[in-house]
Amino acid sequence: MKIANTPKPPYYAVIFTNLVTEELEGYEETADRMVELAQQQEGFLGFESVRDGLGITVSYWKDLESIKNWKYNLEHSVARKKGNEKWYSSFKTRIALVERDYGKE
Amino acid sequence: MKIANTPKPPYYAVIFTNLVTEELEGYEETADRMVELAQQQEGFLGFESVRDGLGITVSYWKDLESIKNWKYNLEHSVARKKGNEKWYSSFKTRIALVERDYGKE
Repeated sequence: MKIANTPKPPYYAVIFTNLVTEELEGYEETADRMVELAQQQEGFLGFESVRDGLGITVSYWKDLESIKNWKYNLEHSVARKKGNEKWYSSFKTRIALVERDYGKE
Repeated sequence: MKIANTPKPPYYAVIFTNLVTEELEGYEETADRMVELAQQQEGFLGFESVRDGLGITVSYWKDLESIKNWKYNLEHSVARKKGNEKWYSSFKTRIALVERDYGKE
């Protein structure tokens, strides 16, 4: 996993923080498929994902429109429903406008 | 590590994504101390932190003013300099305005 190579701000971040249950059948495959699918979406800029008990996945998007289109993607909607009902014991999704960034490459 | 219990948006997120070097002497103690210190700052709302190779730490703040005050904290500035020069091989810091959130508790 690498640091996402995002363009100059402004752009959006979707910060998805979660804890999983012990019923994880189908979880890994679906997670991989969602990454594959997200990468094909218009406006997708990259993502970073780490789990060690707590999971944090941050995906980056061009604008709210592209986040909305991804939310309404049918396969993603089905996966989200399953996540909500079965895989995640708790989660928080935060939609945030990245105003500024800096770093070391 | 738990999901941060943040108030209703708007508030700010500082998304700090990083990779560490192998020279980590003093790193853990300093990281712990920074959490302790951040929690005492006016406007600090919580944080989430996970590492598995890539490290993602998201801290939440009331406004830009509180982020700026934390940035100018002397002990934090010293730690940041050391992180930049020694502990982090690369990092990206993104300052983002959380506009909306939802989840499952």
